[in-house]
Amino acid sequence: MDIEDKYFKNISSRERAIFEGAITMGALFHQFVGTPVNSKSAETLEKSIKEAMELQPCIEEVQVKINRKMLEDANSEFNYVSLNGDMMDIKVVSRYNNKKAVLRMEYIDKLMYPLMYVEEADE
Amino acid sequence: MDIEDKYFKNISSRERAIFEGAITMGALFHQFVGTPVNSKSAETLEKSIKEAMELQPCIEEVQVKINRKMLEDANSEFNYVSLNGDMMDIKVVSRYNNKKAVLRMEYIDKLMYPLMYVEEADE
Amino acid sequence: MDIEDKYFKNISSRERAIFEGAITMGALFHQFVGTPVNSKSAETLEKSIKEAMELQPCIEEVQVKINRKMLEDANSEFNYVSLNGDMMDIKVVSRYNNKKAVLRMEYIDKLMYPLMYVEEADE
Amino acid sequence: MDIEDKYFKNISSRERAIFEGAITMGALFHQFVGTPVNSKSAETLEKSIKEAMELQPCIEEVQVKINRKMLEDANSEFNYVSLNGDMMDIKVVSRYNNKKAVLRMEYIDKLMYPLMYVEEADE
Repeated sequence: MDIEDKYFKNISSRERAIFEGAITMGALFHQFVGTPVNSKSAETLEKSIKEAMELQPCIEEVQVKINRKMLEDANSEFNYVSLNGDMMDIKVVSRYNNKKAVLRMEYIDKLMYPLMYVEEADE
Repeated sequence: MDIEDKYFKNISSRERAIFEGAITMGALFHQFVGTPVNSKSAETLEKSIKEAMELQPCIEEVQVKINRKMLEDANSEFNYVSLNGDMMDIKVVSRYNNKKAVLRMEYIDKLMYPLMYVEEADE
Repeated sequence: MDIEDKYFKNISSRERAIFEGAITMGALFHQFVGTPVNSKSAETLEKSIKEAMELQPCIEEVQVKINRKMLEDANSEFNYVSLNGDMMDIKVVSRYNNKKAVLRMEYIDKLMYPLMYVEEADE
Repeated sequence: MDIEDKYFKNISSRERAIFEGAITMGALFHQFVGTPVNSKSAETLEKSIKEAMELQPCIEEVQVKINRKMLEDANSEFNYVSLNGDMMDIKVVSRYNNKKAVLRMEYIDKLMYPLMYVEEADE
């Protein structure tokens, strides 16, 4: 079966890059939020998230930075916290054919919300 | 702050609808896969997924159908299974301004994979 | 196969009730943390969590209360929040043979941590 | 506040070890099921699960083995699969005071179910 022809010919390459990047952004957030994490385990968790999410269709690169200062500030006496969206800065680079999209999630103080948006997308 | 002006003016209304719908599709899958479910609880779970995911930005409607036959076939002697992507048929309707997108996830036998795609999107 | 005889004869009925209740407590937390929720959807989510987790082995009853005041306080301009452990008060009643255990998760202000503990267990 | 005295004096050290180990077992399963994985990313994912779950209270060691053969057999043309319970063999070692418990999750073919049980616990 030609998947591309059957399911994806109604959107452009740029739209496909945005579509696949956005799926991965939503997936990443909801898969890993809640994971126990502290300063020692953060680097391995970042690497694991990156490797997992780069497997998804059309994903070229995923960068995840877990805010070390927030890890320490949020620290309970149990010496770890549950990962939440406020602690993460994420970049997802997706590509379909020759069109690349860069998607981003970052916590916006004024919104009190981890906002996902398209940082750039090839015309 | 004008979020729209600051973060979203580089993509069209159609692209924004696709973007937000795709985030919700990825989020839904990774939030709820693994949930214990059987024939009795499936309806409440469908309703809960629908109500949760309709809260996300630009989402007009979410429909979730959990395949009752697969629930029964996959049944262990413990009388429930873990929800997985193969069991779900999902439709997400998103809108930004006057542009609507309909996204879909369905299990494709030939691919052995729950495929997410754009079913239709206003030009 | 006699599962009970092969896998569980090394622990008492009281211990089994504690064991199964604790699995469900950990499972509940990590399955549902991150779910979008607001005042309108909270009741359906509570019901869905209850029905899902009551499917697990030896679980007699699950009660989930999502703190409505925290939902409103944590509210962003997007009109929903991600469910986290601080917002939940959970009771899990498990039973094996004639031994019942009641497990609890509640947020302890002084610990800044949602603590799980055994509230009571039949001797 | 003396947490131990206030919340845990109604259970023995052996029961506490079982309790904390079981929470971690349920947590691990429901946090990571659904994660995209293939043969290349499996080792990093195992390490990340181990480091995350060893942060939980009273957990001394966590071992996770993702079945490489099942990864390959389940492989779709997309070159990865969603992690599920059938693919994992887990050992959790917990300790409270001088009492150690070893908990295990393994897929039991005859049950078609990933069974969690107490492999050993100090008397």
